[in-house]
Amino acid sequence: MTPLQRWHAHIAAPDHGALWDMLHPDVVFESPVVHTPQRGREITFKYLASADKVLGGPAFVYRGEWTNADGAILEFETLIDGITVNGIDMIRWDDEGRIVHFKVMVRPLKAVNMVHRMMGEMLATMAAGKG
Amino acid sequence: MTPLQRWHAHIAAPDHGALWDMLHPDVVFESPVVHTPQRGREITFKYLASADKVLGGPAFVYRGEWTNADGAILEFETLIDGITVNGIDMIRWDDEGRIVHFKVMVRPLKAVNMVHRMMGEMLATMAAGKG
Repeated sequence: MTPLQRWHAHIAAPDHGALWDMLHPDVVFESPVVHTPQRGREITFKYLASADKVLGGPAFVYRGEWTNADGAILEFETLIDGITVNGIDMIRWDDEGRIVHFKVMVRPLKAVNMVHRMMGEMLATMAAGKG
Repeated sequence: MTPLQRWHAHIAAPDHGALWDMLHPDVVFESPVVHTPQRGREITFKYLASADKVLGGPAFVYRGEWTNADGAILEFETLIDGITVNGIDMIRWDDEGRIVHFKVMVRPLKAVNMVHRMMGEMLATMAAGKG
């Protein structure tokens, strides 16, 4: 399996152990909401596992795919509380197939605001569960 | 020149005549802010010419490029009023090299809000100039 195929397999059947193994220890995550990059596997894992719950679900589909030498962009669309969320996952891999950079963008404005609110709630819940 | 090279030439030296000629009469534009697609060359031209003014300028750079069979995604970054705007242009061409679909996404939230405000002002100014 290519790294991209491995990612699609994870999306088809989310597996947090597999997700953790896919991430480089120094992976950087950039959210659709916040400017500052999040650095490291622990925080990136938290965001991506949280995104599974926020954006995942029966309505989630990947609609397009673009590639370059070391990465891919996947366009997704989903429907949450009647609001269409259209966005992209921009993923870069190292030579060993580990994810070194993961960036998400979302449109339209209404969806960015909703993702902002839902990600905040989800991360707070996860933090509380750990505390 | 490929359609993608033609686009880069336009960005390097914006030319509204060339931009108009690049657009298919039935081109669809999707903004980072609004859900509803804008249909047709006239409104798409207005948005893209307005985007030139809002996002263009000395700080604007393309940072990455991804392709598929009939299109490309270009990642850009710019700085406006001290706010970093990071986004993508998702462009699809027909067999004759005319742009048939143009979608823009922007992050982070602060940048989406600023683009929202500035695009609104710019489109209002253009409308007033025409009226």
